[in-house]
Amino acid sequence: MSFGSDNQSGASPAVLQALLHEFSQKGASYGTDEATKQAEDKLREVFDCDLVAYFVTSGTAANCLALSALGDPWGAILCHHQAHVLRDESTAPELLTGGMRLMPVAPFATRLDVDTVAAHLRAMPDDRPHNIRPQILSIAQSSENGQVYTPAEVHALCGVAQDAGLRVHMDGARFANAVVHLGCHPADISARAGVDVLCLGATKNGAMAAEAVIFFDKTLARGFPDRMKRSGHLLSKGRFLGAQFNAWLHDDHWLDLARHANARAQVLAMTLAAINGARIAMPPQANEVFAVLPRAVCAQLAAAGIGFAEWYADAILPDKIDLEHEALVRFVTSFASSESEISALAKAGGDTGYFS
Amino acid sequence: MSFGSDNQSGASPAVLQALLHEFSQKGASYGTDEATKQAEDKLREVFDCDLVAYFVTSGTAANCLALSALGDPWGAILCHHQAHVLRDESTAPELLTGGMRLMPVAPFATRLDVDTVAAHLRAMPDDRPHNIRPQILSIAQSSENGQVYTPAEVHALCGVAQDAGLRVHMDGARFANAVVHLGCHPADISARAGVDVLCLGATKNGAMAAEAVIFFDKTLARGFPDRMKRSGHLLSKGRFLGAQFNAWLHDDHWLDLARHANARAQVLAMTLAAINGARIAMPPQANEVFAVLPRAVCAQLAAAGIGFAEWYADAILPDKIDLEHEALVRFVTSFASSESEISALAKAGGDTGYFS
Amino acid sequence: MSFGSDNQSGASPAVLQALLHEFSQKGASYGTDEATKQAEDKLREVFDCDLVAYFVTSGTAANCLALSALGDPWGAILCHHQAHVLRDESTAPELLTGGMRLMPVAPFATRLDVDTVAAHLRAMPDDRPHNIRPQILSIAQSSENGQVYTPAEVHALCGVAQDAGLRVHMDGARFANAVVHLGCHPADISARAGVDVLCLGATKNGAMAAEAVIFFDKTLARGFPDRMKRSGHLLSKGRFLGAQFNAWLHDDHWLDLARHANARAQVLAMTLAAINGARIAMPPQANEVFAVLPRAVCAQLAAAGIGFAEWYADAILPDKIDLEHEALVRFVTSFASSESEISALAKAGGDTGYFS
Amino acid sequence: MSFGSDNQSGASPAVLQALLHEFSQKGASYGTDEATKQAEDKLREVFDCDLVAYFVTSGTAANCLALSALGDPWGAILCHHQAHVLRDESTAPELLTGGMRLMPVAPFATRLDVDTVAAHLRAMPDDRPHNIRPQILSIAQSSENGQVYTPAEVHALCGVAQDAGLRVHMDGARFANAVVHLGCHPADISARAGVDVLCLGATKNGAMAAEAVIFFDKTLARGFPDRMKRSGHLLSKGRFLGAQFNAWLHDDHWLDLARHANARAQVLAMTLAAINGARIAMPPQANEVFAVLPRAVCAQLAAAGIGFAEWYADAILPDKIDLEHEALVRFVTSFASSESEISALAKAGGDTGYFS
Repeated sequence: MSFGSDNQSGASPAVLQALLHEFSQKGASYGTDEATKQAEDKLREVFDCDLVAYFVTSGTAANCLALSALGDPWGAILCHHQAHVLRDESTAPELLTGGMRLMPVAPFATRLDVDTVAAHLRAMPDDRPHNIRPQILSIAQSSENGQVYTPAEVHALCGVAQDAGLRVHMDGARFANAVVHLGCHPADISARAGVDVLCLGATKNGAMAAEAVIFFDKTLARGFPDRMKRSGHLLSKGRFLGAQFNAWLHDDHWLDLARHANARAQVLAMTLAAINGARIAMPPQANEVFAVLPRAVCAQLAAAGIGFAEWYADAILPDKIDLEHEALVRFVTSFASSESEISALAKAGGDTGYFS
Repeated sequence: MSFGSDNQSGASPAVLQALLHEFSQKGASYGTDEATKQAEDKLREVFDCDLVAYFVTSGTAANCLALSALGDPWGAILCHHQAHVLRDESTAPELLTGGMRLMPVAPFATRLDVDTVAAHLRAMPDDRPHNIRPQILSIAQSSENGQVYTPAEVHALCGVAQDAGLRVHMDGARFANAVVHLGCHPADISARAGVDVLCLGATKNGAMAAEAVIFFDKTLARGFPDRMKRSGHLLSKGRFLGAQFNAWLHDDHWLDLARHANARAQVLAMTLAAINGARIAMPPQANEVFAVLPRAVCAQLAAAGIGFAEWYADAILPDKIDLEHEALVRFVTSFASSESEISALAKAGGDTGYFS
Repeated sequence: MSFGSDNQSGASPAVLQALLHEFSQKGASYGTDEATKQAEDKLREVFDCDLVAYFVTSGTAANCLALSALGDPWGAILCHHQAHVLRDESTAPELLTGGMRLMPVAPFATRLDVDTVAAHLRAMPDDRPHNIRPQILSIAQSSENGQVYTPAEVHALCGVAQDAGLRVHMDGARFANAVVHLGCHPADISARAGVDVLCLGATKNGAMAAEAVIFFDKTLARGFPDRMKRSGHLLSKGRFLGAQFNAWLHDDHWLDLARHANARAQVLAMTLAAINGARIAMPPQANEVFAVLPRAVCAQLAAAGIGFAEWYADAILPDKIDLEHEALVRFVTSFASSESEISALAKAGGDTGYFS
Repeated sequence: MSFGSDNQSGASPAVLQALLHEFSQKGASYGTDEATKQAEDKLREVFDCDLVAYFVTSGTAANCLALSALGDPWGAILCHHQAHVLRDESTAPELLTGGMRLMPVAPFATRLDVDTVAAHLRAMPDDRPHNIRPQILSIAQSSENGQVYTPAEVHALCGVAQDAGLRVHMDGARFANAVVHLGCHPADISARAGVDVLCLGATKNGAMAAEAVIFFDKTLARGFPDRMKRSGHLLSKGRFLGAQFNAWLHDDHWLDLARHANARAQVLAMTLAAINGARIAMPPQANEVFAVLPRAVCAQLAAAGIGFAEWYADAILPDKIDLEHEALVRFVTSFASSESEISALAKAGGDTGYFS
């Protein structure tokens, strides 16, 4: 396992303890329980504003149900060409939105930027109803490249979107890692920056399975329980989700967990960089490290049981890599990443003979 | 809470312990983990046959995804007029099957029977593609009326379905309660009786949130992971589901839990029957008790904090109830129902002055 | 053919001539042409109010796209238990509305009535989001039983619907026949009575293939061209539809065509009634005649090449028919029904020996 | 109008005459009529093989319903980045396939080629069910750039598709123009080349509204009438479609019509090329001419009432056009394009002062 993905981690003791406590007793069903109410209240505190929140078990459900609430089935969703919602969620966006279309933007960049999005919006044909018009901009924070948008960048992207009449969705599967990296207030990169709906992921960062769909614009939440119910995402024992979020948000636990993961990513990057022939594809900002490694090193690491993933080749410009002899790889740290795991990586990397 | 629903119960200590253990460590993601594999193997043992199983978090997801695998979007699903999938799952069947139609059968009966189903199939117009033709028969075991089909009855219903070219889906949200009531082998009312897909629910009977979709006809499982993924039901930490099922199935724990619930339902029924003016609507077989109570008694029980639900009025023939002064109510017991909860009910019922 | 269905008729010479003229020249595409604009204007005249209209080629498309504009995918549509949209359009309502559910009302009545609809609305469980709540009432005018609702009846049904927050859809596949029967203004049984959307069918009454979706509440039309386009119903040569409607509406041609059909239905009913052993199931009001015929007569008529259809057995109360020896049959007249066709029927009926 | 689109043309006299004849009489409904059967038989002759054909009124319906028959709702459709089905049909593919995803290929090429498609297939991530895997290759013949694939090219593309387990769909909205350009047998670029389903368009080439969905692999046609019905595309007077096709296919009428259009396109290209500052973007092969024109010329032509369309800017490489002063424009000829229309264009172009 080690660095294959943060979704291979377990759950934090605090979260487990909360679940244990909650489920040793009875409670109201379908999200009408106390734990769920408290979790929603805590989110209001954390984001320092009024909001409506719903809880589901998977990021795909959170993202796609949120998107369905922001547009019509004949609209488009602009997203980065490597967006998780585009690449890794099958045709869930199509099913759960009733048929909206994802439109990838910025094919050779590591993140969205205002100019590219604005240019794309200007260039798009607009002969309705033949052409599909964008209704939503989807931003991943942290991005799928392990990069973090600053509050100013999020604000600017939201501004471009709003000028064009678009709603803004934020895929926050690794939102906590971004907050910690920036040292900002959670609202600075969400509610205050113009985001309409944030999908705040806890699963990758210490929960068992819990994601929040947070509507800062409450009018958009109309019918959301119906959307959840009809997709099978209104759990009878919904307090399972509220309980996790309560413990996770309590006393900045969620940020502490992310801080650990981010710190480990920095050490990991240095460890990788020290391997002979290896280079960091871009400086890690959150809890993911992308590196170019000689394929011989990859084999050696795999043989040593180090977990990591070969990444999409098109996430890097062709002239930055010799794909025959090298691979773009992703290492992900989590709240549970240990020093010993990184030591094992260092050792395995050194054993290749490439180690400097 | 007390008897509002078995989905208001917590989780059994054994299930909680298994979760705690599983999530104190890392594990493979998206259902490729060991716990999930073991759970599938255990199901093979329990049902004494080869099978393919998938795990999801809600009964709605289990039922509707299973149905989507059994028919075309232009087909119909025959089900009892009070089927949960018809009444209580919003338009999830429509969304997740791509538009199949539910057709309620047997409007005035408490359960499906061979003659009614066969007559319905014969009577249905069959001018394709104008008329919608049934492709699936859906049976709830235990039924929504707390009744249990015998092995012979399930076998006969499956026979009628197969003769008409239909597949058979079983909603087993309370399957364990049926097995315990019948004292039969689990396969006797599923695989061996001709059921194609069983949705085996653990949530109401001791799990936190876990349902298995079990394909006895493995060819029907083609594309099922795709169906799960695109509806947001392929959990990254899928071992959360496998771990629950492992503990739940281990050493007949699931049947012990159901046995407790069923036994409590018998005592509950006697307690209710002793209330002045009350009568049991039909003898309970699983863990649900349906009774007709004077509305004054209902108010008294509610005031005493006893949990129960007023039930759909059309679940009982109009001449069996005086709806102005009486209500059809449902009490549900679970693995967690205690003697003291029943005592409290007896006391509250007696305090009404109706108690004999 | 003769009386199998009015959709077996051809097109009126005036409609054909208009098509011939329109298509001997070029014209703008996708409904932006002059003929389409004129047709919409003519509808404003005919219904004496402002409105928005769109044109499609089939009644199924008209009905289901209209329904999709009136509710959410998690809502229900109340309709008569024999509604065409329920019985004869496959799962088009589910596909085109994104998954709404049809709920049949009034199983043993020949038409909807205020008390039944109101009682049904009161009785429906309303535990959202679990239970499905009605959002639309769908009325067929003329009804599938060949019956016509008076202006007062339509008004009352709309009132019940509005009181419960429902929108009203009218399936007007045979709307012209109702207008002619009532001798009322077309708006009396639509716009002025509270109907939100009327699907006005021309196909069965003199057009080749043309149906109008007429929004009296224009706010409901938002996105309708998108709905048409994404279902393949925005024809490139949309003027094909406008041209038909122009000719059809011109100078009350549509009413003249319907008047012919209705008159023929009266003669047909008398002819049928005169057959030995035959009886009219209910007095025809539009252009459909439902009769109970001895099966021997049916065979004789079929042998003589008389077109008619055996009808859904549940459209008549079981004690009104001896299904072993009798059949409920439907005869439909059209603008093209001739005296000689009726004479042929009389002759064939008389030849059975049953003729009185 | 003149050259705005071939869908602005009328219908050929032969087609109109056939419609007039057909609709002066009664006929069976829903495509069970004689005209439809004859049309299917004629297609068997034309393509010299057994096949199953269905008829609908729009290209969008034909394409998207055909695609729905070739893959699962979780599959992808590879198509050219300018494919009509991608650009100009709203989210019809998503709706009618139940949620498949279109994947554009070859962003800077004017057509698909074997190497690009093969490379794309190799490069696509294949981690099911997370990643979306292609199940269909969709080819437009003629292409949206007015280019024609040779029999060898179609054969090679189908080979690449089949090797990867894909089905092949051909959008033949301008198929006749391709046949005429190549002088080949219609089957050489369809059935014999490995195409599974051809959507053969008549609307742009002399019909009023008629498209055929032709299954060369008949097993794929299972359920197609259901697909038509539930999308509102099973016309009650379906003979309207059969009648058009009969006349259109009779005695090579369809090829004669296309031959006229193609010839006009050649003259049109020469006329355009002679305008000062104009250049042909690529040599026209079918009935579309793409040219780069000075914007001043565009204005002058528009002022003179010449119909044409500014085309998608990304259909041409940025260094091939100065978008500030020039526009990429499309002129389409049809069976109805006249010498006088081209003369008018020549005159209007000359009047600009740019004319050489």
